[in-house]
Amino acid sequence: MVPHPCAPHPTPPAWLERVRIVLVGTSHPGNIGGVARAMKTMGLRELALVAPRCDPHTSEAVARASGADELIHTATRHQRLEEALSDAAWVVGCSARTRTMPWPMITPRRFSSRLADEVAAAGEEARIAILFGREDTGLTNDELAHCNAHVHIPTNPEFGSLNIAAAVQLMAYEARQAWLEAIDDDESTPLGEHLDADQALRTAMESVEWDNPLASHADVERLIEHLERTLILTGFHDPAQPRQLIPRLRRLLLRARLDQMETNILRGILTSVERLAKP
Amino acid sequence: MVPHPCAPHPTPPAWLERVRIVLVGTSHPGNIGGVARAMKTMGLRELALVAPRCDPHTSEAVARASGADELIHTATRHQRLEEALSDAAWVVGCSARTRTMPWPMITPRRFSSRLADEVAAAGEEARIAILFGREDTGLTNDELAHCNAHVHIPTNPEFGSLNIAAAVQLMAYEARQAWLEAIDDDESTPLGEHLDADQALRTAMESVEWDNPLASHADVERLIEHLERTLILTGFHDPAQPRQLIPRLRRLLLRARLDQMETNILRGILTSVERLAKP
Repeated sequence: MVPHPCAPHPTPPAWLERVRIVLVGTSHPGNIGGVARAMKTMGLRELALVAPRCDPHTSEAVARASGADELIHTATRHQRLEEALSDAAWVVGCSARTRTMPWPMITPRRFSSRLADEVAAAGEEARIAILFGREDTGLTNDELAHCNAHVHIPTNPEFGSLNIAAAVQLMAYEARQAWLEAIDDDESTPLGEHLDADQALRTAMESVEWDNPLASHADVERLIEHLERTLILTGFHDPAQPRQLIPRLRRLLLRARLDQMETNILRGILTSVERLAKP
Repeated sequence: MVPHPCAPHPTPPAWLERVRIVLVGTSHPGNIGGVARAMKTMGLRELALVAPRCDPHTSEAVARASGADELIHTATRHQRLEEALSDAAWVVGCSARTRTMPWPMITPRRFSSRLADEVAAAGEEARIAILFGREDTGLTNDELAHCNAHVHIPTNPEFGSLNIAAAVQLMAYEARQAWLEAIDDDESTPLGEHLDADQALRTAMESVEWDNPLASHADVERLIEHLERTLILTGFHDPAQPRQLIPRLRRLLLRARLDQMETNILRGILTSVERLAKP
């Protein structure tokens, strides 16, 4: 029997559950509950709370979760953002503001059209992380500098005040759309209509079968630390007069989406330079 | 002066304001406030309340509206659904349930892809109406029978409990997407063409105003030559046993689409390493 085209898909997807929502410095328990509900409606399960500024287990949080409170109970807690990202292969951060140093900026639609490829390019255990900042001040520049790309939700320029649970709802919806379209593609059903502009947006890296797995966020962080140490050692970088040197190099390396062999090559180069500097 | 293609559009569009949100039998003032906020973030202005089961002007409604409460004050009130739909040329109703009598059923994405055409087909004074039902029981079969099509938001089949403000947020977002895409089409900007993956990556970089011009191909070639010389000097690269070292580094640097300052920084680093290698 042919299933009705609108019948729900039978099982939650393995890969949609690898999309992690990371909340940084959330102040209101109700918002954490609203985020849990928004996630669960779209089939997301992994919530990470970085330095929350409230107790996420209050009755208000549970009430707003409206049946999704197990996501609050299973949420991981972290003091530092890096801990919540260590196994992430692609990190995007929601940002309303224009930053002093521009960063690759994508729309939620482009996030959606790239997601299946990013998941495929990541290792089987790797995660995709979507960062959301504080209700009042968003993400800091340091936090945004951990992202491969920033996402700007195209809101009314005269009233851009999206509630954090609403922002999570939109991004989780776009993630689910990506999964539904990938499933449709797999099943060769004609539902996958969005083959035009969105399809063309897949990046050079993922549109071919890449020869090496992507480096993890932690790998890239170690590379950046190594680079900074080496540049101090050679005298090129003076931490007392940092200018924007390290942020610029960080942006470049994150933008390029390094694979594991590239990371190893670059670290090998750094080690050889260190030996020159202190023979 | 030609505006930047990604600059916020100057004025709210006439036609996006003709998309009306119709709430039937809403019980909770907070939800009406949340709906107003969701609408305003996406540039919608017309709210119609049909037989609300609460006072929409409570402090809770105003608090949840978070600055969008003028939409509550200007909302129209109706006893009968037909009154709220009389000037509507296209009516869609959000429905979670499968009905006994099947109705044309579209996804929010198809709603979005059809919206501009429906607006164009409607008269200048006509409206597009999106119906949302009661928090507990949704829309009745009679109410759904007023719709040209039903919209099913594709939620997790195990947890489809979308808050009404979240459902309005998603549909308003899809309406805004339709408008943004129509504006792009109208202005014949080349952004909608997405020629190839390389173009897409450049678009991603330029979709914010980047802080430096892109390096020319010749600049990048000179950088790669400099890198190769330096790696030979330090002993890391042996041209007699090249393996794939230089092609891999070349691929990485070309993929990242370097800007001019990044090229200068990298050449500065190489020069400082050269000085170490031959003091």
